[in-house]
Amino acid sequence: MPRARIMCSIFAISLAWTIGKRNRTIAPRQKNKIAFIAPLIAGLLLPVLWSSQNPPRNQKYQELAEKIRSAGLRHEKAFKLLEGLIKTSGPRLTGSPGAAAAVEFMRKHMQELGLEAWLEPVTVQHWVRGDTEEASIIQSSERSPYFLSVTALGWSIATPAPGISAQVVEAASFDELRRLGEKVKGKIVFFNKAMDRTYLDTFQAYGEAVPYRGRGAAEASKQGAVAVLVRSMTLRIDDDPHTGMVQYDPKVAKIPAAAISTLDADFLSDFLQKNDSVVINLKLSCRELPPVASANVVGEIQGTEWPNQIILLGGHLDSWDLATGAHDDGAGCVQAIEALRLIKESGLKPKRSIRAVLFMNEEFSVTGGRDYARSGRRKKEKHIAAIESDRGGFLPVGLSVGGSPETFLKLQGLQDLLKPPGIVWVRPGGGGADIGPLAGQGTVLMSLVPDSQRYFDVHHSAQDILASVNPRELELRAIIMAIVAYVLAEEGL
Amino acid sequence: MPRARIMCSIFAISLAWTIGKRNRTIAPRQKNKIAFIAPLIAGLLLPVLWSSQNPPRNQKYQELAEKIRSAGLRHEKAFKLLEGLIKTSGPRLTGSPGAAAAVEFMRKHMQELGLEAWLEPVTVQHWVRGDTEEASIIQSSERSPYFLSVTALGWSIATPAPGISAQVVEAASFDELRRLGEKVKGKIVFFNKAMDRTYLDTFQAYGEAVPYRGRGAAEASKQGAVAVLVRSMTLRIDDDPHTGMVQYDPKVAKIPAAAISTLDADFLSDFLQKNDSVVINLKLSCRELPPVASANVVGEIQGTEWPNQIILLGGHLDSWDLATGAHDDGAGCVQAIEALRLIKESGLKPKRSIRAVLFMNEEFSVTGGRDYARSGRRKKEKHIAAIESDRGGFLPVGLSVGGSPETFLKLQGLQDLLKPPGIVWVRPGGGGADIGPLAGQGTVLMSLVPDSQRYFDVHHSAQDILASVNPRELELRAIIMAIVAYVLAEEGL
Repeated sequence: MPRARIMCSIFAISLAWTIGKRNRTIAPRQKNKIAFIAPLIAGLLLPVLWSSQNPPRNQKYQELAEKIRSAGLRHEKAFKLLEGLIKTSGPRLTGSPGAAAAVEFMRKHMQELGLEAWLEPVTVQHWVRGDTEEASIIQSSERSPYFLSVTALGWSIATPAPGISAQVVEAASFDELRRLGEKVKGKIVFFNKAMDRTYLDTFQAYGEAVPYRGRGAAEASKQGAVAVLVRSMTLRIDDDPHTGMVQYDPKVAKIPAAAISTLDADFLSDFLQKNDSVVINLKLSCRELPPVASANVVGEIQGTEWPNQIILLGGHLDSWDLATGAHDDGAGCVQAIEALRLIKESGLKPKRSIRAVLFMNEEFSVTGGRDYARSGRRKKEKHIAAIESDRGGFLPVGLSVGGSPETFLKLQGLQDLLKPPGIVWVRPGGGGADIGPLAGQGTVLMSLVPDSQRYFDVHHSAQDILASVNPRELELRAIIMAIVAYVLAEEGL
Repeated sequence: MPRARIMCSIFAISLAWTIGKRNRTIAPRQKNKIAFIAPLIAGLLLPVLWSSQNPPRNQKYQELAEKIRSAGLRHEKAFKLLEGLIKTSGPRLTGSPGAAAAVEFMRKHMQELGLEAWLEPVTVQHWVRGDTEEASIIQSSERSPYFLSVTALGWSIATPAPGISAQVVEAASFDELRRLGEKVKGKIVFFNKAMDRTYLDTFQAYGEAVPYRGRGAAEASKQGAVAVLVRSMTLRIDDDPHTGMVQYDPKVAKIPAAAISTLDADFLSDFLQKNDSVVINLKLSCRELPPVASANVVGEIQGTEWPNQIILLGGHLDSWDLATGAHDDGAGCVQAIEALRLIKESGLKPKRSIRAVLFMNEEFSVTGGRDYARSGRRKKEKHIAAIESDRGGFLPVGLSVGGSPETFLKLQGLQDLLKPPGIVWVRPGGGGADIGPLAGQGTVLMSLVPDSQRYFDVHHSAQDILASVNPRELELRAIIMAIVAYVLAEEGL
């Protein structure tokens, strides 16, 4: 399409130039006027031609988009499916019975919708939280013992049964940790890095704070720490601890790692200011069990002309265990399926295949995404585009797209179709953890981006429940997925 | 500013024309080229000049806006104030002790912030719900009695103590009501008009459905009905009845009016399909008491140069009685105060006065807004602009502005300043119930518009509580209010 624009522009200039030239035979006064007006028109026309964002091929897509939007908003199908999933599976931690129930429920549901549906095997880790999670301040003049609101980080090792009792040292950054040097030895390091509230995009704040959850234990262990406590990754000041992965360094000893709520992080920080020596007893009974056979759940509408060319819509089916993962990423899964349902119900038969992939095990190292991309089945397929949704089922605002500048301009042309269901921007970017491994195969990666204000209120915590999802926001996401997927399935990229 | 753009454009065309003319003395080949290029440049330049959205007067505002945004997002001051208000007042129905407590709390709070603060008297109605609200299906083969989830509409009259027992007839529209003719006589009319789910803007759906709540009782009474039940104004299908005003027609008899939950509206509609005659007993004990002296609460930062020229930020302090009115319109009140606090804390001393007005009694006939505009105090004041927020404390997305096209273009020029805190559009429109009476005084009316997906989940129901408010969304609204108010206070309109 950009080529078409270049051609148009060249045509406009040529036309103006030709008119100007031809009119040199006309009376001088008139000639001057035409010679002036013609290039003026070209000048006025050029930016219009260049700025007009690839209007959709024809009115057809506008009407279809409108039809899909009405059909979607009329009901709460995505929300009902999410409710069904949650009632069936409960929390869906990788390797858990809940995750296995979710696989079966979603496969069956896609079959009932009349989609081609199948499972693709994934072997997953099986970490369990265990019954004991406790962090108590056991020695202080003021309050003893005081129980902090705590939760183990995923993949943390357990403490010995009586717990680890050690003095706490606070560090707000890795620099501060290094400056503490020998003082860390034998201690529990408390990483109290708050997410920066001043960013509009809360993911930016998350990106800056999350290394303390991920690498904190490894860095502290290098200096001889015996455990770490991490301030929860949320902008709310409340009682809920937020879990997430810890990434151990194979070169240093693993030490237990847990998150405490933001209220308790503030309390502990104050308490450390007022007391010379604060000792905490940390008890965790989490452990890793043998790997488990699990699966990615796949469903699709087969393309009528090029069934082996795929438009993939993806989310991850596993969740954390503190809640039912309504936003993270139940939302991403149900909206991929709802997008297929909307396309099917609208009687559309796309030329290329549109596929929903519910990846297993995003939270523990993305093995589902990796195994999907590596699978032998992919050899006879070409994934044209993959759109991931893994930032919660909140109000959709943008489409972040990868690929070449030419691809970007083409996708930006979808903006007119996506405005009615609420998309306000299409920007370069794209990608996502689960679809990332497809990058090497020439797939254009995209991400459906919601407004980010509320996500970290619930992310990885006990608050990630159905009640925090708005049915209309969720449905709008499915509608947008359906429109983008259908146009790409028809037009290619 | 638009004038400046016109001048620029005229200059660009003249320049091109002159260059073209002057170069007629040059060698013909070169002459042609220049005569072509000059107007081409003019053509290219024109749209740029016309599209450039009035850049803010200087870098100063960009920096101030950034400073205000950071200061606001760093804390949850608007949310904390809302929490304080709610804890003090509880529900704040016009004329109630809760409303009186809210007046005192907010006046005191504004004084503590160092603002000029005062009360302006308003006499308000005093309607009370009473203890009894019941609607039961008392005669049916299947279920008897079945209690519907019901709530009286504001200003409804009571039923006799034993209730009104009558057969129910359903009407989805006023047309259907008229077609029912005599069949309505002695019956309870059930208006089952669902909000249209397919609109993106839920206020559009509300606008279409709300006449059945407002005028339903009057229209049904004209045909001899003895009471009305109205489907709740919400897009959720749930158990909560949503109240709101009924507007009686002085020419026809007042009849009791109540809303039932959407779940029960669907149930009742089905039940009426299956049963020839369904009798409901409706009991309401609501009543009107004598009027009460109340007040609008006003606080301001006085302008340094033109203190009698006012930029007004408004919301309404009264709420419905089913909950604490966190969104409707506690949010509007606290964000007006927070905007003043942000301006004050940033050390800004605006040339014109910036005033927060917490109007009393929006829900029962807007007497606060009317009395504010009518007050003798207004005689020596000129309200330059008034910005109302009364659509909930949700994610701000747009600024709806009234006034002349020239004023609109000027306000559109604020878009660059408002983008970082999240505003995606500035559109013609403007206004609001409480600031409406200022329209006759040449005030430019504006409204800060949030995303509308979630508002009717809570609106006028028991769900309008603090837990449904996100502190960051609320704070972003205050930040935007502060930026707009300060620029207008400096620049005028």
